[in-house]
Amino acid sequence: MASSLVRGKYVVCGGEGGGDSRVIEDGAVYQRDGEIVEVGTYQDVRSRYDPDEEIGSSDFMVVPGLVNAHHHVGLTPFQLGALDAPLESWIIARWALRDVDPYLDTLYCAMQMIESGITTVMHNHMMARLPAGEGLYESASRIVQAYDDSGMRVAFSLSHRDQNHLVYENDESFLAGLPSDLSRDVRSYLNARPISLEDYLTVCAELFDRSRSDRTRIFISPHNVHWCSDEMLRAMKEFAVRRGTGVHIHLQETAYQKMYGARHWGKSPLAHLADLDFLGPDVSCAHGVWLTDSDIGILAETGTAVCHNPSSNLRLKSGVAPLNAMLERGVTVAIGIDEAGINDDNDILQEMRLAQKLHRVPGVASASPTSHDILHMATAQGAKVTFFDGEIGRLAPGMRADMVLIGLEGISEPFLHPDTDIVDALVYRGKGSDVDTVIVNGEVLLRGGELTKLDKAAILGRFKESLAQPMSQREIARGELSRRLLPYVQRFFEGWPLEHGAPHYYYNSREL
Amino acid sequence: MASSLVRGKYVVCGGEGGGDSRVIEDGAVYQRDGEIVEVGTYQDVRSRYDPDEEIGSSDFMVVPGLVNAHHHVGLTPFQLGALDAPLESWIIARWALRDVDPYLDTLYCAMQMIESGITTVMHNHMMARLPAGEGLYESASRIVQAYDDSGMRVAFSLSHRDQNHLVYENDESFLAGLPSDLSRDVRSYLNARPISLEDYLTVCAELFDRSRSDRTRIFISPHNVHWCSDEMLRAMKEFAVRRGTGVHIHLQETAYQKMYGARHWGKSPLAHLADLDFLGPDVSCAHGVWLTDSDIGILAETGTAVCHNPSSNLRLKSGVAPLNAMLERGVTVAIGIDEAGINDDNDILQEMRLAQKLHRVPGVASASPTSHDILHMATAQGAKVTFFDGEIGRLAPGMRADMVLIGLEGISEPFLHPDTDIVDALVYRGKGSDVDTVIVNGEVLLRGGELTKLDKAAILGRFKESLAQPMSQREIARGELSRRLLPYVQRFFEGWPLEHGAPHYYYNSREL
Repeated sequence: MASSLVRGKYVVCGGEGGGDSRVIEDGAVYQRDGEIVEVGTYQDVRSRYDPDEEIGSSDFMVVPGLVNAHHHVGLTPFQLGALDAPLESWIIARWALRDVDPYLDTLYCAMQMIESGITTVMHNHMMARLPAGEGLYESASRIVQAYDDSGMRVAFSLSHRDQNHLVYENDESFLAGLPSDLSRDVRSYLNARPISLEDYLTVCAELFDRSRSDRTRIFISPHNVHWCSDEMLRAMKEFAVRRGTGVHIHLQETAYQKMYGARHWGKSPLAHLADLDFLGPDVSCAHGVWLTDSDIGILAETGTAVCHNPSSNLRLKSGVAPLNAMLERGVTVAIGIDEAGINDDNDILQEMRLAQKLHRVPGVASASPTSHDILHMATAQGAKVTFFDGEIGRLAPGMRADMVLIGLEGISEPFLHPDTDIVDALVYRGKGSDVDTVIVNGEVLLRGGELTKLDKAAILGRFKESLAQPMSQREIARGELSRRLLPYVQRFFEGWPLEHGAPHYYYNSREL
Repeated sequence: MASSLVRGKYVVCGGEGGGDSRVIEDGAVYQRDGEIVEVGTYQDVRSRYDPDEEIGSSDFMVVPGLVNAHHHVGLTPFQLGALDAPLESWIIARWALRDVDPYLDTLYCAMQMIESGITTVMHNHMMARLPAGEGLYESASRIVQAYDDSGMRVAFSLSHRDQNHLVYENDESFLAGLPSDLSRDVRSYLNARPISLEDYLTVCAELFDRSRSDRTRIFISPHNVHWCSDEMLRAMKEFAVRRGTGVHIHLQETAYQKMYGARHWGKSPLAHLADLDFLGPDVSCAHGVWLTDSDIGILAETGTAVCHNPSSNLRLKSGVAPLNAMLERGVTVAIGIDEAGINDDNDILQEMRLAQKLHRVPGVASASPTSHDILHMATAQGAKVTFFDGEIGRLAPGMRADMVLIGLEGISEPFLHPDTDIVDALVYRGKGSDVDTVIVNGEVLLRGGELTKLDKAAILGRFKESLAQPMSQREIARGELSRRLLPYVQRFFEGWPLEHGAPHYYYNSREL
């Protein structure tokens, strides 16, 4: 480790609580051994330290490392052959996707993320995607290893579920309605890969004990409320409390999930979690598209966080989460790209921009997220939900040295009004291609837009080679099963006409 | 002029009526003197012609030139200093923006558009942005000249209005409610630039007679229904009918515009246009966010088209147009980027993608636009609304040779499932940076991502130089007036609580 002075025409320090971010013009950050020692004007900081290296210039802005607060995979489902579809059928369509090497797949997305300015990711790994012949612990630890090799920070969790694997009712009831040959084949598929709660918790404990580091957090993750028994939810919460770690869960991603709650508990899934004493600042919920007014109150009261995924919510026909109401109530909301982002490429700047534009609901007096709100979500709030709070998310003495230098040329050429707030300029116009340098813990991961720690060409070459292998019989059979099952899953949900009261957002109207 | 053979791993010919696009694998297009002579497999076409030049290879896909069906300016309002805001206050905030040279401003956006694969644009020029000391005809003809110099096609119109310049009531009523000094200054500003309907029509006639060419159409454009007297609407429609040209009008962009219709005519602005016999296939309406079910019926019955602008509709808090219902009813819908696009950069591929994702409304059985629908909107439907129908929008013998070569590497590396529909791949993953070659009328405007006909560095240099001039007293005074007026405009619309019935789209819900 060593020291460096990171310089920009603007140093955006970030804010504590949304609203304005502190910005230093002609600023610099001095870091030593991965810790920020001082932040101030370039002249001032330069005069007082003798860094090993000076990075940046007045052609750049410096911002805190960006946090992707909800993420699953490297190659996107689309790349692997699954078109955007309603979540409930898309899950089954994904059975048809080929297995990928988890280590190379993770390096692939780590490279994309670093290139777009992401320094920390909440990686939630779904078990259905375990490669053949490898154990759960091995597979998970190879993902954690990939992030470690990439230099990024990660809050890693394995997600788990123990019910309703096919549709939103118990498996036996649904299987009973299928043609007998299909029922038999699906049952055999489900039975071929059961992992008990006990096994799951053992693996999580092992990861927690062996893979935790200063750049790695190990979380626990019940997949979603309707997919987990109360027993499982209680056991996972207990795991988190005992180890002082975080819980990441999908929640009310679709209207059907909200409807499941109404049918099974007479309340929302979130309200059910509240009944189980599951909620709190240690819990982050992905999506939360179908949160009611009452749910938003529960989040605010319990300090439970939401990871907002605007692209995914559109692509999977989930909807638009009521972000404006959450921000108004003071709910902690971070931003995640989920499986892909609108451009299918893990670009956090694009996701931040979509988050801003999407919530500009009609009305001259309606509130909508400012650029500072959006940056706060992608930095300080991301730090909170990944349990790196107090270490990252702001540029201030004592924090870890996670920073991104973004070129000003693309943002401000050929003209940018001189009074423009630089955070507005970033959120309105910044692109992944403007990201020049990425630093984590004082270590440079990207310089001049080129990865320094990972050998991109070599990794892509190995990845391509592994993907050039023909699909296995197991993969082919799984794809065929998926195609046979899909029409029945579709029909099941067609039997649940969408139920909704007044929407949070009115974007248009059928009537005069 | 000369001949060329344009080759791609895929040649996407485009479709007649949405749905599937005809795709030729290992295809080629042979054009001579700007006209497509043959489209077929590379082997076949190559064997029968002897082109002067061969363009492309199996590293590319070839698609019809893309059409940006609604556009106004080069430098975006954000670049010039106006943040996203509700349309009604944003219009007044724009008074504060500096004037720009219309020729250079147009070349600037023409370069951006060509770089993203746009070959034809509907440019609607707003009169409030006339530079000082220049007449309307001169200013307009310099814009048309810029497109001509760029090699693009343009359907150009000047927009005009004669009422409700400040808010959605007559100017005198609104002025009467302002403090007297503000009222005096605003009245003086409005009176300083009146252009009569007669003058306007004379200029349009002159443009029509002198600037029309094989790459240029001259349209007529009443700005929006509530901004034009019935007399003006009738005169413009009559102009269009007499000259067999198109009419471009903004329509029901915001809820307030719909509400204006209800208050003034007891019906929607579109229904009012129908009463005036204004509608028909010669008319394209920008935005149409607040179209009712009944309005969509009127569009379908009269053959009136809509230009859909998803980014702008979010940025200006207009809402989300009911595209799904329009497509279902067979309304002609094209895509336009309007002032900027979500990334503030005139990237049509990004706009197409947003148009696709935004309309993925919840529900397993809900319809939403396919990639083929989106491509059709950005090609054949764009050709219709710009009056280049039968010349562009598809790759077929007899059509003009307007084509775009898009690199496959970024879209398909490191892996893309071999069964992936190439049109899906384009709409899901294609970026402006993948655009390699752009051809209009057989002439190459972009090659290897570099502009060939325009000298980008020189134009940007001249543009920057012109923008480095200090603002004039006139501009400064206009900005101050805008800032003084804005709170009153805001207050006016706060007095119009949003009225809406059931929305077309339910994206979320406040209730269980």
